[in-house]
Amino acid sequence: MNRHFDIELKKLKEKVFRMGLLVEKAIENATSALLHRDSVKAQEVLKGDQEINLYEIEIDELGHELIALHQPAAVDLRLITMVLKITNDLERMGDQAVNIAEKALVINQEPPLKPYQDLPEMAAAVRQMVRDALDAFMTADPDKAKAILERDDFIDRINDKIYDEIQKILEQKSQHIRTGVSLIMVAHNFERVADLATNIAEDVIYVKKGIDVRHHIRERRTGDNFQEQV
Amino acid sequence: MNRHFDIELKKLKEKVFRMGLLVEKAIENATSALLHRDSVKAQEVLKGDQEINLYEIEIDELGHELIALHQPAAVDLRLITMVLKITNDLERMGDQAVNIAEKALVINQEPPLKPYQDLPEMAAAVRQMVRDALDAFMTADPDKAKAILERDDFIDRINDKIYDEIQKILEQKSQHIRTGVSLIMVAHNFERVADLATNIAEDVIYVKKGIDVRHHIRERRTGDNFQEQV
Repeated sequence: MNRHFDIELKKLKEKVFRMGLLVEKAIENATSALLHRDSVKAQEVLKGDQEINLYEIEIDELGHELIALHQPAAVDLRLITMVLKITNDLERMGDQAVNIAEKALVINQEPPLKPYQDLPEMAAAVRQMVRDALDAFMTADPDKAKAILERDDFIDRINDKIYDEIQKILEQKSQHIRTGVSLIMVAHNFERVADLATNIAEDVIYVKKGIDVRHHIRERRTGDNFQEQV
Repeated sequence: MNRHFDIELKKLKEKVFRMGLLVEKAIENATSALLHRDSVKAQEVLKGDQEINLYEIEIDELGHELIALHQPAAVDLRLITMVLKITNDLERMGDQAVNIAEKALVINQEPPLKPYQDLPEMAAAVRQMVRDALDAFMTADPDKAKAILERDDFIDRINDKIYDEIQKILEQKSQHIRTGVSLIMVAHNFERVADLATNIAEDVIYVKKGIDVRHHIRERRTGDNFQEQV
């Protein structure tokens, strides 16, 4: 592949990285909004989402230009379409951060519902997955990407635990239904972010290894039988 | 554009249509599983998801081959990458049908929680949106696509209504927390399917009109509506 294409591709990846940093920040702010009852941070997330959305459109345009201009061979083409998918996953993470921030604004108006000690642990683990997914993408490191896939089960388990925990609390204190259900939804939003980080990791592995692990992993997650696919 | 490319593109679209029919069926079965407490239908959804996933991989491969082989001009390139995005949206709809079916399996083991009269209406409206999105895609009809976007607000409102309704029931009957929360999650899953149908509609408009309405619409949708969930 020619040098000019390589330079353009590098620029494209750097833009994805900058978009990724904004998404990380949004998740961090949404987490603070929730855990420290900080509604100012929640507002920051809502305001910042437009910039993330614009990044997606910009990267989408650039990726298409790059294909149209350079007419890349199969492998490079696959690389660019993967970048477009990853950008879409990042944008959806941004939407999840918005959802969490919106829930935080509701939850922060109600008296705190204690204890929900698993949520901070879940939030920290999910943020680390996002950071590592972005890192695996930038360094094209399939080992780092694989390590992310392994953490997805932990997130699913902690999500179930939070669900059960809050359900038990609500059976005792039904006046807290609104807060409790909002917290269950927030845990679900974090779990979705972890799924999206997993999507990115799967794409990194796919491009690097040229095999489709995506549905294999998905099947394993949902407990169905895996059928060999290439 | 040459005739051979047109034929290949038509084949690609037909594959998307067949995939779409499977997704429609999955949503229909998941709805029956829930509303008629039919756990056999729920199992059908779980079993059928693999076929939907395989369609996504197959269409993805075909789309990439088509680009690599024909090196299409900008407009046609955009058309193919949109097909790939739409396929991804359909696959995610399939996942939502699985989520609904899984919840139905839980809910069907508990005594029914009455009334939740809005859920059948929501399910029917969402199924119609999926059908119309697929139709708008096949006929490349932006007017049909626009009509889908307009219905998304209705889905958001009915989702909020279901949420409030179940919350009120649970405040009286806290022993039904599990069923109630599962129903809220199911409504959320249907709302996600509507969002995905909206994504498809936006892409149909985008390709046809060449303007990006996606984020404009998303901004309008999020607005001040704190219940907006993705």
